[in-house]
Amino acid sequence: MAELSPIESVIMTGVLGIAVTGIFYAIFLIFQVLRAEEGTKRMKEISIAIKTGAKAYLKRQFKAIAPLMVILTIALFVSGQIKEFDIAVGRAIAFLVGALFSMTVGYAGMSMASNGNVRVASAARSSFNKALQLAYRTGTINGMLTDGLGLLGGGTIYLLYLDRAYEVLIGFGFGGALLALFMRVGGGIYTKAADVGADLVGKMEKGIPEDDPRNAAVIADLVGDQVGDCAGMAADIFESYEVTMVSAMILGYAAFGHAGVIFPLMVRAMGVLGSIIGTYAVKARTETEDAMRAITRGFTLSAIITIIGFAFFSIWYMGQVTKLGMMTGLQVFGATFAGIVLALTVNTLTEHFTSLRKQPVKDIAKSSQTGAATVILQGLSVGYEATVWAIFTIAGAIVAPVMIFWPDFLKASYGVALSGIGMLTLTGNNVAMDAFGPTVDNAGGIIEMSGLEKETKSIMDRLDAVGNTTKAITKGIAIGSAVIAAVALFNSYIETTGLTQITVTNPYVFVGLLIGGAVPFLFSSASIRAVGRGAFQIVKEVRRQFNEIPGIWKGTTKPDYAKCVDISTRTAQRELIGLGTIAVLTPITVGFILKEEALGGFLAGAILVGQLLAVFMATSGAAWDNAKKTIEDGLYGGKGSDPHKATVIGDTVGDPLKDTSGPALNPMIKVINLVALIIAPIIVTFKNNPSTSLVLVGIGLACAAAVGVAVWWSKRAPLELKPTISK
Amino acid sequence: MAELSPIESVIMTGVLGIAVTGIFYAIFLIFQVLRAEEGTKRMKEISIAIKTGAKAYLKRQFKAIAPLMVILTIALFVSGQIKEFDIAVGRAIAFLVGALFSMTVGYAGMSMASNGNVRVASAARSSFNKALQLAYRTGTINGMLTDGLGLLGGGTIYLLYLDRAYEVLIGFGFGGALLALFMRVGGGIYTKAADVGADLVGKMEKGIPEDDPRNAAVIADLVGDQVGDCAGMAADIFESYEVTMVSAMILGYAAFGHAGVIFPLMVRAMGVLGSIIGTYAVKARTETEDAMRAITRGFTLSAIITIIGFAFFSIWYMGQVTKLGMMTGLQVFGATFAGIVLALTVNTLTEHFTSLRKQPVKDIAKSSQTGAATVILQGLSVGYEATVWAIFTIAGAIVAPVMIFWPDFLKASYGVALSGIGMLTLTGNNVAMDAFGPTVDNAGGIIEMSGLEKETKSIMDRLDAVGNTTKAITKGIAIGSAVIAAVALFNSYIETTGLTQITVTNPYVFVGLLIGGAVPFLFSSASIRAVGRGAFQIVKEVRRQFNEIPGIWKGTTKPDYAKCVDISTRTAQRELIGLGTIAVLTPITVGFILKEEALGGFLAGAILVGQLLAVFMATSGAAWDNAKKTIEDGLYGGKGSDPHKATVIGDTVGDPLKDTSGPALNPMIKVINLVALIIAPIIVTFKNNPSTSLVLVGIGLACAAAVGVAVWWSKRAPLELKPTISK
Repeated sequence: MAELSPIESVIMTGVLGIAVTGIFYAIFLIFQVLRAEEGTKRMKEISIAIKTGAKAYLKRQFKAIAPLMVILTIALFVSGQIKEFDIAVGRAIAFLVGALFSMTVGYAGMSMASNGNVRVASAARSSFNKALQLAYRTGTINGMLTDGLGLLGGGTIYLLYLDRAYEVLIGFGFGGALLALFMRVGGGIYTKAADVGADLVGKMEKGIPEDDPRNAAVIADLVGDQVGDCAGMAADIFESYEVTMVSAMILGYAAFGHAGVIFPLMVRAMGVLGSIIGTYAVKARTETEDAMRAITRGFTLSAIITIIGFAFFSIWYMGQVTKLGMMTGLQVFGATFAGIVLALTVNTLTEHFTSLRKQPVKDIAKSSQTGAATVILQGLSVGYEATVWAIFTIAGAIVAPVMIFWPDFLKASYGVALSGIGMLTLTGNNVAMDAFGPTVDNAGGIIEMSGLEKETKSIMDRLDAVGNTTKAITKGIAIGSAVIAAVALFNSYIETTGLTQITVTNPYVFVGLLIGGAVPFLFSSASIRAVGRGAFQIVKEVRRQFNEIPGIWKGTTKPDYAKCVDISTRTAQRELIGLGTIAVLTPITVGFILKEEALGGFLAGAILVGQLLAVFMATSGAAWDNAKKTIEDGLYGGKGSDPHKATVIGDTVGDPLKDTSGPALNPMIKVINLVALIIAPIIVTFKNNPSTSLVLVGIGLACAAAVGVAVWWSKRAPLELKPTISK
Repeated sequence: MAELSPIESVIMTGVLGIAVTGIFYAIFLIFQVLRAEEGTKRMKEISIAIKTGAKAYLKRQFKAIAPLMVILTIALFVSGQIKEFDIAVGRAIAFLVGALFSMTVGYAGMSMASNGNVRVASAARSSFNKALQLAYRTGTINGMLTDGLGLLGGGTIYLLYLDRAYEVLIGFGFGGALLALFMRVGGGIYTKAADVGADLVGKMEKGIPEDDPRNAAVIADLVGDQVGDCAGMAADIFESYEVTMVSAMILGYAAFGHAGVIFPLMVRAMGVLGSIIGTYAVKARTETEDAMRAITRGFTLSAIITIIGFAFFSIWYMGQVTKLGMMTGLQVFGATFAGIVLALTVNTLTEHFTSLRKQPVKDIAKSSQTGAATVILQGLSVGYEATVWAIFTIAGAIVAPVMIFWPDFLKASYGVALSGIGMLTLTGNNVAMDAFGPTVDNAGGIIEMSGLEKETKSIMDRLDAVGNTTKAITKGIAIGSAVIAAVALFNSYIETTGLTQITVTNPYVFVGLLIGGAVPFLFSSASIRAVGRGAFQIVKEVRRQFNEIPGIWKGTTKPDYAKCVDISTRTAQRELIGLGTIAVLTPITVGFILKEEALGGFLAGAILVGQLLAVFMATSGAAWDNAKKTIEDGLYGGKGSDPHKATVIGDTVGDPLKDTSGPALNPMIKVINLVALIIAPIIVTFKNNPSTSLVLVGIGLACAAAVGVAVWWSKRAPLELKPTISK
């Protein structure tokens, strides 16, 4: 095992130092946000209700998954035993730390958003720029924690284990990924069950506006924004951040030794530095400036700092210090930079297919003239087309490193991981932009419910429109990075199993491919159904409260908000275990029954179809949403017209696709790949021993049975609620 | 080259004799149907209008694709030159004959359905059984032509070329497949543009019933049933029938020499024999018997005859005559029988997910209480889940032969082809059942438009309900057989290229896999959009006629039916070339740029995703349709209620999915695989020559450009119609 050279030790110290600086910057921002003014008593009340609901949800969630985490920690410890004892211990601990970090990012993001929302609402009463800065900084806390904790965890594990670090880091990545999966699935189901349920009764049946305080589901809806958009997205990106690091370490060490591992850490450190400066610089130049321009300015500043930084390190460190030569320096720079190009391409595509000003959304809006059916069809068509371009983009991201490192395929695989590193360099800014969305959305809700001034509302509307855009952009980045991370993990799987081929000419591999392709559909089917079921429960409850408590409609009695929060929470929890089980156990089943080569086919199928469905769902969902907005802006008869009603149906169909099922696919494909990476050595070790082989098939069958139970579980008849108020 | 033994010559004579008998049986039925009574003058008029429209459509279609066929014939001739001159000539001729047969099946099926419809309507005035028999026999003509021509073509080519037969048969299969693609795509777009357009103005805007003679699009709608359901489906199944034969010949010859080719031909001959007897036996025992029971009785009879027949040949011919041994006899029987099990499994799954009496459709119906959005979501969830079970079924169909022929993978590949042969043995019955559907549907339309007696209507309604079921079952068989055929072709591709691996560890193969997966999405996106565009044109035209010709609404003036027929025809034609180009040129592009191994990955991706999308679309579409029927039968408020409106939206969304985009995917994946099979030797031959390699990349890029143009073409702004009547 090679030790680090003195200069490398200095570099690593610098990397960890920057990671800690990022975390301190986040803490500094926390105090800055908390110091801001909270507004009226009514605003505080609402804010506290949201906060309480969100906290209750997360608490319940962590409790629900605790037993599974204990089982998995033990399983990871046992799986690590196949290597060495200290790896086994390290992997189990890293798993818990990864899960803890993911949880922290999610929890902090959510908690800050729910502290920030009321303060942003209050700031909007005096100044647009103050509101913008406060909202963006609230988001930045989340972003910098993701960045800082990710880099700190990865760097520390590397320093402790050096060339065996990836064995431990798999545990770290898996912990983060699993938690992200739970946050995404649970949060996604929660937010859309509440949202769809609230809209169905409120907007459609009773004709009251969104966020009307008489709607019993309104708090659940606002809580949903927090748990779904904030906690879920932060955990998701945190996980991609870690997982690209895992594969960069595995492939980088194989290709270039220590230098291959240290370089991506340096790139990341540059990213943290760039994000600190760029995010703090976000500020509107005038009170009427477009918020998007201010945010983009900050992003550009961060990008310039980061690119100059990693260009320098490519040439100085990879080219000179390591003596790998100038050519290698240019190559790693090219591969990392390709990630930035990829991010820009993804943004452009997202923009094209979902922007109000482009043809696809205009076509959907136009089709509303002939009713809801044509709106749905046109939206499907747009989403399906977007997947094609997204696939070409990903194909480009795979081919580019192959060209750059020609003819070395191993280095090319490392290049793919570097693209992932490059793409997620500005995670600080990306997550900040994303968390900005639900913060301003919530602030808008608080203003609506507290009946504040018209000017405040108009400032908030401007920020909210930008929030939708930033959310859509981050969604694109999240999918793109998830796929690149999955491809990098897939390459890591090939590297660690030592497979020289995964050939679809082998019928077992072909079958693996087919089953892998089916998993994203199974997952989507179950999560869509879960939202429907949850929304149905919410509808029944809100109707019941309106019917049984007459004071609510008159506004004299407050509805029982907690009841709806409770229903959403329970629905989300019920599905978590089933879906989590599917993600963890299907690769184990395929791996143990059909062996490691077929498992490779399975991974390829899951990545392919997962990517297609995720892009389709995100795109169609956003396009339907914006088609509705186009009409609300006055096209084809505007609000209340038949075309408007048609697009509202489109939007409601799109909601669970873009906010529940689609986003859940990102962590799912990463979890599947990580599980494969963990079990691969076990399968390979025992493969040639006939008696243990039988045991392994037994394990596989047991897992298949467990998946079956999970599917059955997720399809059970809806949980009937105990009536708390007698008739 | 081994010659046939005397006993094999006798067998082959018998096979061809049975094929000819099948064709004569079809001709016999044609005369029988044409002898039947045609009904009132009004009925004849409508029937002639439908017939004229359908013929005009097909004529235009054949004209539109003629230039492409000429180019492809030349290309096939050139591609064959790489082997020998007589192969080149044979392949080019076989291509034209295959196309001609496919056309004949489509044309005859459609023409008979449009002659049959009015006679069935007339028969329904006197007896339920007479109407049933006549409708079923009308369908059988189509079925037996498919069977007979398929077997005759395959058998003759085999006798002429023996061990080189597959080289020529590829041309035959490709001709059939390409025509089927055009029929499916063109017919599918035609039928749904007319159907959706007619419903949007008729049912939704004007509140007049389906098939009301005042609706200018009503004839186009009835014509659509013919060109879409009849001609398209027959050509599609004809093609699967041929294509499984192509792969059975390639793999059978590699595994068992001549015996491996003759055996599937014998199985097919037994199928033809069974179908002749079974279809003629279809008859209702009483005037009130369920038509489905009568049809199933005939099917069972055919199945028993066929299974006994091929069991005998398995043991006698494969086991004894060829001296391959009893074990081989049992193995080939097992693999063929697995196809029958597969067909039954597919039927059961289709039944479960789309039947009125099962939970999935009930769930969709229930979700209509909360509006159209939840209907769509629930339907998506059902369709997505169905894909998972379908994938497991296909996986089983691949694993079963592997088990049966363990450990010989080549024989296992042959076994997959045999499953396909087994699955399509009763093509005569299957196509009969399918063509029965549009015939009775049309007959119902004629009865509605001619204002016949209530009893006649009720008899027709009973037949129509059964027609929907038989159509759904055939659709399942068509998808299942298409996928099995594609897998068998994929195995043939591996066999003829001599590739020992198509390993996804190679980044080019992985990229090929990704692109292959994107093609079905591209195809679906374009075809959905085409239907939307066509429907929009129809809506404008029908509205225009109502506005400008006041006599139509009062019933004093006949609307200009021909105009709508013309619009549908033109819309369908416009898209044909673009989509056909995509299917033919994408594999050429990938093959020439990324080479044969990546092309293998491309095929795997296209099969996987094509299968998933096809099953999803067929299932969701049928489930939405039946959810609507459930409500029309009185559930949740019945016809005219809000839940009913919600399910009508679901049905309208499902229509183009289940009748245009989904069915077009079957021929598409087969065309892609056949093109790959044709170009593979060219790629392999020239691969190691750097200068021609460059030329090949050039060809690839040119093809990519052509695909680009095709995509652009299919997205152009809608064709504006010249106004024929001045204001």
